[in-house]
Amino acid sequence: MTELLLVGIGTGNPEHLTLQAVRALNSADLILIPRKGKNKADLAELRRTICEEVISNPATQIVEFELPKRDADNPNYRQGVDDWHDAIASVWAEAMDGLPDQARVALLVWGDPSLYDSTMRIAARLKPAPEISVIPGITSMQGLTAAHKIPLNTIGTPVLITTGRRLREEGWPDGADRLLVMLDGECSFQHIPSDGVMIWWGAYVGMREEILLSGALREMMDEIVETRAAARAHHGWIMDIYLLSREPEGDGESA
Amino acid sequence: MTELLLVGIGTGNPEHLTLQAVRALNSADLILIPRKGKNKADLAELRRTICEEVISNPATQIVEFELPKRDADNPNYRQGVDDWHDAIASVWAEAMDGLPDQARVALLVWGDPSLYDSTMRIAARLKPAPEISVIPGITSMQGLTAAHKIPLNTIGTPVLITTGRRLREEGWPDGADRLLVMLDGECSFQHIPSDGVMIWWGAYVGMREEILLSGALREMMDEIVETRAAARAHHGWIMDIYLLSREPEGDGESA
Repeated sequence: MTELLLVGIGTGNPEHLTLQAVRALNSADLILIPRKGKNKADLAELRRTICEEVISNPATQIVEFELPKRDADNPNYRQGVDDWHDAIASVWAEAMDGLPDQARVALLVWGDPSLYDSTMRIAARLKPAPEISVIPGITSMQGLTAAHKIPLNTIGTPVLITTGRRLREEGWPDGADRLLVMLDGECSFQHIPSDGVMIWWGAYVGMREEILLSGALREMMDEIVETRAAARAHHGWIMDIYLLSREPEGDGESA
Repeated sequence: MTELLLVGIGTGNPEHLTLQAVRALNSADLILIPRKGKNKADLAELRRTICEEVISNPATQIVEFELPKRDADNPNYRQGVDDWHDAIASVWAEAMDGLPDQARVALLVWGDPSLYDSTMRIAARLKPAPEISVIPGITSMQGLTAAHKIPLNTIGTPVLITTGRRLREEGWPDGADRLLVMLDGECSFQHIPSDGVMIWWGAYVGMREEILLSGALREMMDEIVETRAAARAHHGWIMDIYLLSREPEGDGESA
């Protein structure tokens, strides 16, 4: 049985790698690196750098593959994602074809394989099913709070991890006065009442390109939108994340 | 100005350490290790092991200090915590007394300094204020999902990070069909309706002592309660965490 190692690599700082990840990568027969044409958002360069810096096993082969494109025009979002995952699994299977039994194949997963990442769902499509090992990695959530030097939560209170789309479509959800917002291509913080809300925003968190902005949402909103657009135009891609905090209602107890 | 390095060390597997953490620890003049008498929950032994394994700088001094006790009898929980943090800051200040200017002092923070951890709040009490650096670490959240080989979230949906106390006192909160529950000394999952709820539970996640249980909450509840009690009695301490998932209401849109 093939062993598939899903290795969390953190958020762009090659030093986010854990000792466990270094060992896992060095135990691999094959490492698969995804590419999206000339799109820098594929971070193939970073993955190559990580492999160069930490892999000392001469037997480890590194193979790049072209990542299939998701059909963004599919009106059924879930179905579009499902089809895309099928296509990626096929490309993996092709790259792994001909490996000996018991081969170890590693994928370098941005952040951590558990958080808004599809690697595990794609791996579950492989036939025959490989044995899966998951190596945890630093998430952009931890990258953001470390960079801003802030705790994620206030003492004993909950935090909701959510997406830009949810925030935009449903407003501030019940159940938490702190929101960690990911997967937001549209600065969705513009669509909620900003009164009394603080924001800690970061782009390229952990990388050399890191940009941090924070303050009262009302005052920072325009600057973040402009900074994000400029950085995206400059680098050709962007990845950002933010934490929102509002004054607790009714002394922190849910209403 | 003193530099205070808050170094996330992950959840008990010494290999959770990142390359950045290894470098930070080796740059420290002084490393402070907390002790709680003979209580194994202080994990002083683990911190010592980590230091032994990764510190190659002979100039790095390691000093252990007795952690003050929190007054659990204080009827005002927040005030009790505040007083406790004051006391810890005083002990740190004492240990750091006499260090040269520009000294670098490191603390090994269980998990990540951002998540249900007070190290940043304690550090903010130091006078004169040190310069703070935060090195992110693997949290028990990632340790749990890696061990169970599961994603934290379903596609595009939110996850609420909350505490056992909240779950017990307020029931399943609005806003999320997945709950990551931490700081739960009382198996609070017993106090919610278990119909249609799945649980992934882990104790000593990432450590040699790791115990994992998962399944339908209704069927697993008693086994988890018993396993937890037995493990706690056996080891003299326990740290556990779990993810709960329920069927989305109204197709995943908040009602």
